[in-house]
Amino acid sequence: MKQDINNGNEFDKTPANHVPLSPISFLKRTAKIFPDKKAVIYEDISYTWSEVALRSQQLSAGLNKRGIKKGDTVSVVAANTPEMIELHFGVPLSGAVLNTINVRLDPETIAYILDHSDAKILIFDTVFFESVNKALIILDNPDLQVINIVDQSIKGNKQKIGQITYEDLLIEGNLELKDEWILPDDEWDTISLNYTSGTSGRPKGVLYHHRGAYLMTLGTAVDWQLPMHTKYLYTVPLFHCNGWGHVWTLTAKAGTIICCRNVTAENIYKAISEHHVTHLAGAPIVLGMILNADEKIKIKLTHPVEIMTAAAPPPAAVLDGIERLGFNVVQVYGLTETYGHTVMCVWQEEWNNKGLEERATLKSRQGVNMIITEDLEVFDRDKNQPVPNDGKSLGEIMIRGNIVMKGYFKNLRATDEVLSGGWFHTGDLAVRHPSGYVEIKDRLKDIIISGGENISSVDVENVMYRHPAVAFVAVVAKPDDKWGEVPCAFIELKQGMVSSEEELLNFGRDNLPGFKRPKKVLIGAIPKTATGKIQKFALRQKIINLRS
Amino acid sequence: MKQDINNGNEFDKTPANHVPLSPISFLKRTAKIFPDKKAVIYEDISYTWSEVALRSQQLSAGLNKRGIKKGDTVSVVAANTPEMIELHFGVPLSGAVLNTINVRLDPETIAYILDHSDAKILIFDTVFFESVNKALIILDNPDLQVINIVDQSIKGNKQKIGQITYEDLLIEGNLELKDEWILPDDEWDTISLNYTSGTSGRPKGVLYHHRGAYLMTLGTAVDWQLPMHTKYLYTVPLFHCNGWGHVWTLTAKAGTIICCRNVTAENIYKAISEHHVTHLAGAPIVLGMILNADEKIKIKLTHPVEIMTAAAPPPAAVLDGIERLGFNVVQVYGLTETYGHTVMCVWQEEWNNKGLEERATLKSRQGVNMIITEDLEVFDRDKNQPVPNDGKSLGEIMIRGNIVMKGYFKNLRATDEVLSGGWFHTGDLAVRHPSGYVEIKDRLKDIIISGGENISSVDVENVMYRHPAVAFVAVVAKPDDKWGEVPCAFIELKQGMVSSEEELLNFGRDNLPGFKRPKKVLIGAIPKTATGKIQKFALRQKIINLRS
Repeated sequence: MKQDINNGNEFDKTPANHVPLSPISFLKRTAKIFPDKKAVIYEDISYTWSEVALRSQQLSAGLNKRGIKKGDTVSVVAANTPEMIELHFGVPLSGAVLNTINVRLDPETIAYILDHSDAKILIFDTVFFESVNKALIILDNPDLQVINIVDQSIKGNKQKIGQITYEDLLIEGNLELKDEWILPDDEWDTISLNYTSGTSGRPKGVLYHHRGAYLMTLGTAVDWQLPMHTKYLYTVPLFHCNGWGHVWTLTAKAGTIICCRNVTAENIYKAISEHHVTHLAGAPIVLGMILNADEKIKIKLTHPVEIMTAAAPPPAAVLDGIERLGFNVVQVYGLTETYGHTVMCVWQEEWNNKGLEERATLKSRQGVNMIITEDLEVFDRDKNQPVPNDGKSLGEIMIRGNIVMKGYFKNLRATDEVLSGGWFHTGDLAVRHPSGYVEIKDRLKDIIISGGENISSVDVENVMYRHPAVAFVAVVAKPDDKWGEVPCAFIELKQGMVSSEEELLNFGRDNLPGFKRPKKVLIGAIPKTATGKIQKFALRQKIINLRS
Repeated sequence: MKQDINNGNEFDKTPANHVPLSPISFLKRTAKIFPDKKAVIYEDISYTWSEVALRSQQLSAGLNKRGIKKGDTVSVVAANTPEMIELHFGVPLSGAVLNTINVRLDPETIAYILDHSDAKILIFDTVFFESVNKALIILDNPDLQVINIVDQSIKGNKQKIGQITYEDLLIEGNLELKDEWILPDDEWDTISLNYTSGTSGRPKGVLYHHRGAYLMTLGTAVDWQLPMHTKYLYTVPLFHCNGWGHVWTLTAKAGTIICCRNVTAENIYKAISEHHVTHLAGAPIVLGMILNADEKIKIKLTHPVEIMTAAAPPPAAVLDGIERLGFNVVQVYGLTETYGHTVMCVWQEEWNNKGLEERATLKSRQGVNMIITEDLEVFDRDKNQPVPNDGKSLGEIMIRGNIVMKGYFKNLRATDEVLSGGWFHTGDLAVRHPSGYVEIKDRLKDIIISGGENISSVDVENVMYRHPAVAFVAVVAKPDDKWGEVPCAFIELKQGMVSSEEELLNFGRDNLPGFKRPKKVLIGAIPKTATGKIQKFALRQKIINLRS
C-alpha cells in the first residue's frame, strides 16, 4: 500500500490527538490535581485552586447568561485583586475576549478604548469610579452593561454604577453552571485585547491568541525555572500585557499568587516575610523601590527572591545594589505586541567569575530569544540585514515567533507595517555583542543625533545614574542650532539628597565623551506611566515649551 | 468599522507571528546561545552544542544529496551513541521521517519494518551487522542505500555493508552546507515513525508529528523541573519512543548528554561520579540494576540523582530501596502511541509526612496527566463513563491531547479503533484513587479472571516481590477447569539466592487472599524485551506447552 506519510486520510486531526492550545487547560488541570492548594491571597481573602476554578466557571456562566457570545469583548478596569485572576480564565472560558484597561488612563482614553474594542460588558473596580464614570458619560452607550467589583477591604465611599456587583454575577452564573471546560474551537482565536500605552497617537489594540498565551506560559515556566507551588507576588499590573501572562504561568505551576493593590516597598517586604514570596516581577521602578526603601522597612532575606524585570533597561548601579540585598534579578525584554517578555538575559555560567560590576553590566543587557521566541535579530535598517555582533553597530530589534500578536484590531495598515517581511519590527534600537546578546540603546524615536553622531540616550542615562544623588534620569534630544540635537538630562533626586545643575553637568563632563555629555540638566520629578516607563514624550514637550 | 475579532483578514497567520512547532528550533537556539557548552559525551568523544548543530546540518545536507526528500523514511539501527543524537535533528531537518528500530529485534522483524516503513536509507551501527545483514537479505531491496556507523571505541571486527560510513555522509553533506534551519511547512508533518514492540501480532508503525515532539519537550522540562545544563545519562534506548523525547528536552535546556552503549550498574555509577550526572531515566529494570549492584560498584552519592522510571510499575520495595541510596524516583506512564510518558506521579507536598513504605506505595502509582496531556480518564468499559475515584473500580485508561500519535502508518482500521470517541484507548486497566491518582492494575489482556473475580496480576506480583529471594515476578493466567483461570507466578531469583516452589507458594498463601494467591510457581529466567518489559505472551506460551 502506498501512502503519504504526512497526510494520509487516517492522519486527520481528531479530538483524541489534537487539542487547541489554551491556558484554560492549565486551570482545569491544576484544580483537579491540587484542589486544596492555596491559589490566591489578598488581604483577608484566600482561595484554593478549586475555588478559583469554580469562581471562574461561575463568571463564565454569568457572562454567557448576560448575552456574552464567542468573540464579544469584555472590558475591565481593575486592580490586581483576585477578581483579576478569575477574569483571565472566566472571560476566555465564556468565549469572549478579555480587554483589560490601564486604570490610570484619562476618561477620554478609557472611552476611546471601550468604543474601539466594541465592549459589551465593562467590569470595573469601584475604586476607579471617578474616571470610569466620566468615561461612560463620554462614551454614551446605553447598551454597555456595567458590573461593579466592590473591594470589601477598602474603607470609605464605594460609589457603584448601576447595582450589579461582580459577586452577583457569580451567583447568577452559579445557577447555570456546568462543570465543563470549553476550549476555543481554534487556538488562533483571540484571548485578549491589550491597548498599547499610546505614547504616540491613539492607543492600538493588540490581539493575543490562545496559542500564544499557552506557549508563553510554558516558556516562562521553563526559562524562569519555576518550582512547583511558586510563591509569587503580583507586582506587574495585570492590565499590562495580561501581567506578562504570569497569571497563566503561576496557575500551570499550581503556585500561590499574592495580590497587592498598591505596589510599595512596605507591601513588597511584608509579602516576602508573611507569605514567603520567592518570585516577583516588574519594571525597574520596582527595583528602585526595593533598593531605596527606608531602612526600617527592609528585612534581611531568609530565602532568595527572584525578580524578573522588564520595560526600560535598569542601570547597572541599581542591579548591583539590589543583588547585594539578596535579590536575584533577571532582565527581560518585550513589548505589548509580543505578549510581554520574549527576550531574556539568560545567564552564562562563566559569568559567575566576573566582578560584581561587570556582572551587573552583563545583566543589564536584554539578552537572547526566550525558548518560545523563534528568532531575534538586530537589523541594519538601511542594508536590511543583521548587524555584525560587534557591540557597536546599531540596528532595529526584530522578533519572529508564536508570541508575536495576531495584529492590531481594526488597523490593517499598522498591522501590515509592523509585521512586514516575516518579522515584527519593534522600533527599538540595539547592538549585538560578540556573545550574541542584544543590548537596547534606544527607542527608534529616542535616539539623539548630534553633529551626525548617534547618541544612545540609555548610554548617557547609565552614566548619570552613577551619581549618588540621582534617583531617576531621562535623557532626550534638545534641538540645537549648531549640532542639530544635543542631550538634555531630566533628573529626579533621591529623597533627602541635594545637587545642582552645575554639579550634574560637571559629572557628565567628567564621565562622558564631549558629544555625549548632557548640555542641559533639569532637576525635578519625572513623569512616568502606570507601568513605570518614563514618559519621554512629556519631557520633549517640556523642552519645546522651554523654547517657545 | 465592524470586524470579527477572531478572523478578520488582517489576522491571517504570517511568518512573523506563526511558526510551526518543531524541536529543530531548540537545537538552533541552543547552538546560538551556548555554542561552547558540552553537549554530548561518549567514550573519548565530546561535542559542543555548536558541533552537534553543525554535524546535524551536515547529516541533513548529506541525506538530501543522496536523494532524500520531504516525507521519505530514514531507518536507523543504532545504539545510544552521539550519532543517534544527531539523527534526531538531522533527519527531520532534511524533511525526512526518522524510523529508529529496536536493535534487539530478529532479522525477520527488522526486514518487515524496513519494508513497511518504505525506508529509503538505512543507517546502522556495524555492531549490529549480523541481524541487519540477514534482514537485508530477507528484504532484498537493491534500492535501499546503507550507511555504516563505525564506532571507533569498539575493538575487533567491524564488518560493513557497502563502503559508505556515517562520517563520509557528513563530509558529503558539508560540501552542500547552507547555514539554514528549515522547519516543516506544517507542524502536523511527521517527525518520526516508531514501531510498537509487537507483543501481539505484527508491530504497528506509530507516527509522531513535530507539534507533539515540541510540546513533549517543553512539558518534560516543566514537569521534571529540569535545571539549565542538566547532566543527563541516556539510559533509555533512543530507539524506543525517541528515547521518550529526552534528546529534544536536553537540547532545549542546553544540557550535557552522556551516552552509554551498555546500560550496566557499573556504567551508571561511573557516569554519576565522572560526569556528575544528575538525571537519568529508564524502565524499572534500571532501578533494579542500581539497587542490586555489587557493593564494590556502588558509590555514595555526593549530589541527588533524579530518576524518571516508566514502563511497568516498579514494586514499592524497589522504590523504597533505591531512595535509601539517595536517588529520587518519579514514576511516569505512557505508551509508544503517546510519545512515551504523558502521565506522572506528581508529588503532593503533604506526602512528605508519610512513612517510607507509604511514600513508596504512593510513588508507584502512575498518577495524573502531565502538563501537556490534556485529559486522562479511567473509563468503565461497559458503561462508557469514568469510574468512581474509589481505588477499586477497574476501567480502561483513556488519554487525550496533543501528545497522542497521528495514527498507525498504513493501518486505518487500527487507527480508527484506538482513537475512537475522542480518546486514545490505551488497553491498560487501572483504578482511580480518591486523590484522583491513577494506578495501573493490568493490561487489558493480562487480567486474570478466576471464579468470576478480576485479579490484577500486578497486585499479586507486588506481594511476591516482597519475598527476599525474588528478583523478578510475572503472574499470568493459567487455564483451570474449575475456576476458569488461576494465577501462575513465574519467578526469577536474585543471584546467589535460593528458594523453592513450595516456599513461594506458602509465601503467597500467607500474604494474599485465597483467590489471588498463585496456584503454581515456576522458577527460572524470565524473558524480557529490549526495553525491559517482561514478555508475558512468552510465559503464556510456556503454560500452553506445559499442558499439551
